[in-house]
Amino acid sequence: MFSLETGICQLFKIDYPIIQAGMAGGPTTVELVTEVSNAGGLGTLGAAYMTPEALRQAIKEIQSTTQKPFGVNIFAAPVEDDFSRLAEVQKALSPFRSQLEIQEIQSSYQSPDWSEEQFNICIEEGVPIISTAFGCLLAGQMKAAKERQIKIIAMVTTVAEAKQAEASGADVIVAQGSEAGGHRSSFSLDRHPAGAQIGTLSLVPQVVDAVDIPVIAAGGIVDARGLVASLALGAQGVQIGTCFVGSKESGAHRAYKQAIFNSDEESTVVTKSFSGRPARGIKNRFIEGFEQTGIAPLPFPSQNTITKDIRAAAAKADDPEFMSLWAGQSTRSLTEEVAAAEIVRTIIEEAKVMLS
Amino acid sequence: MFSLETGICQLFKIDYPIIQAGMAGGPTTVELVTEVSNAGGLGTLGAAYMTPEALRQAIKEIQSTTQKPFGVNIFAAPVEDDFSRLAEVQKALSPFRSQLEIQEIQSSYQSPDWSEEQFNICIEEGVPIISTAFGCLLAGQMKAAKERQIKIIAMVTTVAEAKQAEASGADVIVAQGSEAGGHRSSFSLDRHPAGAQIGTLSLVPQVVDAVDIPVIAAGGIVDARGLVASLALGAQGVQIGTCFVGSKESGAHRAYKQAIFNSDEESTVVTKSFSGRPARGIKNRFIEGFEQTGIAPLPFPSQNTITKDIRAAAAKADDPEFMSLWAGQSTRSLTEEVAAAEIVRTIIEEAKVMLS
Repeated sequence: MFSLETGICQLFKIDYPIIQAGMAGGPTTVELVTEVSNAGGLGTLGAAYMTPEALRQAIKEIQSTTQKPFGVNIFAAPVEDDFSRLAEVQKALSPFRSQLEIQEIQSSYQSPDWSEEQFNICIEEGVPIISTAFGCLLAGQMKAAKERQIKIIAMVTTVAEAKQAEASGADVIVAQGSEAGGHRSSFSLDRHPAGAQIGTLSLVPQVVDAVDIPVIAAGGIVDARGLVASLALGAQGVQIGTCFVGSKESGAHRAYKQAIFNSDEESTVVTKSFSGRPARGIKNRFIEGFEQTGIAPLPFPSQNTITKDIRAAAAKADDPEFMSLWAGQSTRSLTEEVAAAEIVRTIIEEAKVMLS
Repeated sequence: MFSLETGICQLFKIDYPIIQAGMAGGPTTVELVTEVSNAGGLGTLGAAYMTPEALRQAIKEIQSTTQKPFGVNIFAAPVEDDFSRLAEVQKALSPFRSQLEIQEIQSSYQSPDWSEEQFNICIEEGVPIISTAFGCLLAGQMKAAKERQIKIIAMVTTVAEAKQAEASGADVIVAQGSEAGGHRSSFSLDRHPAGAQIGTLSLVPQVVDAVDIPVIAAGGIVDARGLVASLALGAQGVQIGTCFVGSKESGAHRAYKQAIFNSDEESTVVTKSFSGRPARGIKNRFIEGFEQTGIAPLPFPSQNTITKDIRAAAAKADDPEFMSLWAGQSTRSLTEEVAAAEIVRTIIEEAKVMLS
C-alpha cells in the first residue's frame, strides 16, 4: 500500500506530508506557521499582502522560534492596476459603506507591488521553501532560488498550468481542486474567467500523470480520509487551508472563524466581488449585494485595493457579512477552534490507523 | 486497511463495488448493462427517456442474457411542462436548425411523462435494483419496492438531499460530486439554479458522516485510483459514467465517443442549454451559441423536448457540435473504445495491487 513517508517529506525535510496553505491576509500568524512546522508538517507564511518590513520581521520571528523548515507564499503575477471604471464600481460599493457607516475618502488608489521585494527578502533571509499562486516565478528568480537550494512549490488548477510550472523549474506542484477555499490559482483569467474549477479527485491524478515532479493535493481536505484519498490518487501529500483558518493560532477574525464553524458544503460560492479574482468564500451580504448590482468588479488587484476599507470596517464592527470569508467545501466537521498541532496530529494518527 | 468487498457487494449481490451509471439517452445498451453485470459490477439501464414498450423489451432481453443483478435508472421528478416562452426560445434555436438544414416543424409540444409507468414495469418485470435522479420515489412506490425486496439507490448532490433520500426509504445513496458528467441530480433548482457543485472528495465524507446507509461515490472516477480514493473517503463503492460512454458496448454516437477521447479536464461546462436542467458536457457550438443569445432555456423537460430534433439531426450528420456530449472532468486517460468488462477488470486488478 501507500505510505505516509512520501518523497516530499525527504525533499522538504518534514515528518508528515501536510502543508499548511500560505493564506494571505491574516490567518497565517508566526505562531500558526511555527506550530504546524513543529508538529511535523510544513507551516507556511501567507506573505502576499505583507509589507516588506512586516515580512522580514515575521521570517526572523519564525526562525528564532523553530529550527524546522517552513514556507513563504507569494503571488507570482505582475501587479497591473486598472482603475478606469473606478467611479462606476465605487457607486456599487457605496451602499455597503453606508451600512458600515464609513465614507469613501480616497479619490485615487494604487495597489502595492511588493512581490519582487518579497521574493528578495525570502532569498536574503534564507527561507527554505517558497510557494507561489497565480503563475510562475521569473526565470531570474527561479535561478536565484536554485542556486540557494530553495525549493519552489507552484499552485495550479489545470494540467496545462502544471506543465508550465514544471517547465519553469518548480520542484513541486500543488494541484488545487475546485473544492479549495480562497483564490483560484488559475494563471490566465482570459482563459478561465471564473477560475478553472476541476474537482480535486479529478484534477490530481491527471496532473500526476502529466508531470514528473511530486504533486500535492489541495481542495476539500480536512481529515485523514482526505489525506489517504489524496495518496491513493497519486499525490505525495496534501495542502490544507480552511482547517487552519479555524485553528487557535490563526489570525483570522473570530467572526470569520465562527462563520466557518456555522457553514456547510452549500455555503460557499466562487466570487470576484472582493478582489477581482475568482475566490471561494462563504456567501454573505457583500457578495450577494455586489453581484446583484450587475456591475463587474475592477480587475485584480485593483478591486481588492478599493474594498480594503470595507473589509477593515467590517472587522472592526465584528460583522462577517462584509468580510471576505474564504473557505472550502468541507466545513461540516469544523465546529470549534482546535490547536494547529492537534490538527496535524489527529490527521496523521487517524491516517496511520486507516493504512494499518 | 479497507477492502474491495464492501457492504454494497452483499446488498446488491455483486462481486465488485462498481456501478455503471444509468445514463439516459442511448449509451446504456442491453449489451453494456449485461457485460458490466457479467463482469461482476452492477450494470444499469438508463431508462428515463425510453418508451414503456422499449423499457419492458430491454429488461426482458437483459434477463434472458444474464442471471446477474442489474439496475434500472429513472427520473424521480414530476414532469411539469412550461412552453409559455416557446416562441422566444425557438427563435434562439433557429440558427442551429439552419446550420443543420432542418425546419422547425412543430408548433406545439408535450413532453412524455413515463416515469410512473417505467417504475411499474420495473416492479412487474422483477428488476432487482432501481436507481433514481432528481428526487425521491413517491411513498407508494417505495412501499411497493420494499415489499418486493427491490433495492433503491438515490443520487444526491448535497448532504440535505442525502438525508431526505434516506428518510424516504432509499437503501443506498450515490453522492454525485461536481466532476460528474451529465445531469446534476440536485433535487431543487430553486435552491441550486446551476445544480449544487460540491467536489466528490468534499461531498462523499460529509454525506457518509450524515447518513446511516451505504454511500457510493460518483464524479471523476475513471480508474483504480478513483476507486481506492473513494473507499478512503468512506464510500462503499463507485458509480462510473463517462468511462462506459466510451466503451465498445455503449450506444453513444461514435462522434460523441470521439469527442470524449479528444477532451481534457478543461473541456466541459455545466449548461442548461440542451435540457433546461444543469448538466456537465463538453463545450461545443450549440452550448456556446445558445448561451450567447442570453435567452434562458425553457424549464426541464420542455427544453429537452424542443431540442430533440436538433440533436437527432446532429447525430444523423455525425456532427458533435450540436449533440449533447455529457462527460465528466476526468477524460484525459480515455483515448479509445475499451470493452466494458475490460474496464471493470482493469480497475479491480489495479485496485487489488494498490491495496495489497
